[in-house]
Amino acid sequence: MSPRIELYYWPTIQGRGEFVRLALEEAGAHYVDVARTKGGMAAMMRFLEGREPGARPLAPPFVKVGRLVVSQTANILGYLAPRLGLVAEAEAQRVEACQIQLTIADLVAEVHDTHHPIASSLYYEDQKKEARRRAAILVAERLPRYLGWLEDVLERNVRGNGWLVGRTCSYVDLSAFQVLAGLRYAFPNATARLERRIPRLVALHDAVAARPRIAVYLASGRRLPFNEQGIFRHYPELDARPAQRRAVKER
Amino acid sequence: MSPRIELYYWPTIQGRGEFVRLALEEAGAHYVDVARTKGGMAAMMRFLEGREPGARPLAPPFVKVGRLVVSQTANILGYLAPRLGLVAEAEAQRVEACQIQLTIADLVAEVHDTHHPIASSLYYEDQKKEARRRAAILVAERLPRYLGWLEDVLERNVRGNGWLVGRTCSYVDLSAFQVLAGLRYAFPNATARLERRIPRLVALHDAVAARPRIAVYLASGRRLPFNEQGIFRHYPELDARPAQRRAVKER
Repeated sequence: MSPRIELYYWPTIQGRGEFVRLALEEAGAHYVDVARTKGGMAAMMRFLEGREPGARPLAPPFVKVGRLVVSQTANILGYLAPRLGLVAEAEAQRVEACQIQLTIADLVAEVHDTHHPIASSLYYEDQKKEARRRAAILVAERLPRYLGWLEDVLERNVRGNGWLVGRTCSYVDLSAFQVLAGLRYAFPNATARLERRIPRLVALHDAVAARPRIAVYLASGRRLPFNEQGIFRHYPELDARPAQRRAVKER
Repeated sequence: MSPRIELYYWPTIQGRGEFVRLALEEAGAHYVDVARTKGGMAAMMRFLEGREPGARPLAPPFVKVGRLVVSQTANILGYLAPRLGLVAEAEAQRVEACQIQLTIADLVAEVHDTHHPIASSLYYEDQKKEARRRAAILVAERLPRYLGWLEDVLERNVRGNGWLVGRTCSYVDLSAFQVLAGLRYAFPNATARLERRIPRLVALHDAVAARPRIAVYLASGRRLPFNEQGIFRHYPELDARPAQRRAVKER
């Protein structure tokens, strides 16, 4: 039997931890979401403060498998996915999956910075003006670029049965699902407009949501709701309608 | 003989490509910096526009090795390093190296956003006010956090001979060198103050700079100078002296 996987992540948000949770759920893995258990937050802090052996993570999420501590979302997934059957054995496919995951991570960081363009340590209210400027450009330029690229990856994978890499569902498909779900929550107007241009990605989202274990997970209490402490936050003032969007300086 | 490695990156800046260049140079690899050759920019654009087979990169850097196209800096290094002898064979060390590289990548993205806090597509001059705010927090909070973490990784690797992972120089040491070199260029005042608290990282920087192949490379025309088109840019107004720094709102 494979060893139990300990996941460490903030207990009240989906955040970056959700990409790992989705992989563990899809695989039916034997795991514990430690910080959501009694005493789990203190356990997580011991790692972050360098009071546990093994590689010290700078930030969650991280996992512990046996004695190995693995941090950074894409690295965690690159480590776990072959063990969970969520990526092909072939190196070319693992490398392609990793580059897609890292590109999704770049998008996630940009989404985070729409509500925190100056500093994570300042309140949203203290950077609201800058947030409006940054969000307008995310919606007008960055989302079309990233989501259009994912759509193109799907189109190029002609024998991929609708998946991003290879012919079966891999961890990056779960991550792409999560990104579209998050964008629908955070920027419903902008995302609805964009979805007309990304039919393959919308179909992938639906295919992931319909997978038996994912469907059970999404309906369970283990799936935290999106909220305004996470990465994908719904601030109506950042989800401009078309008329407002036109005011964005074009270059 | 190993196949020739083609590196694709913007030809006039160090940028993210420099992390790959340093690894190739340290290994004495047989490589071509394609976009710096005649017709190379057009060749690079064909990949970015999806007119070449293989995984389409969203952005440079990427490498082509045989028929495989690999993008995203940390993924490129994770792929090349075992082939170049720049990381140990053991999975635990490769996973630890990757998480350090990805954490360095996070820092690099934050440094980029000090001069482009609103959008990469806008001129610095159009986001100068926001840049001052963001840079002040980078200097006061983020650099101590990231560099202090790297210092701690060095301190914890007690038998590491001054290297970050294992007992020999790996690709993440080259990347840590590049980050400190870049910060010295971009934020000379802030970095000088910080260096008192990171003696191990400063020693690592010097040890990398003194490696025979790196020393030759740094003195060669292949090493592009830092400039104000790259990631590490020197804008004096963003490198506040202590008196100015105190004006940053404390929380």
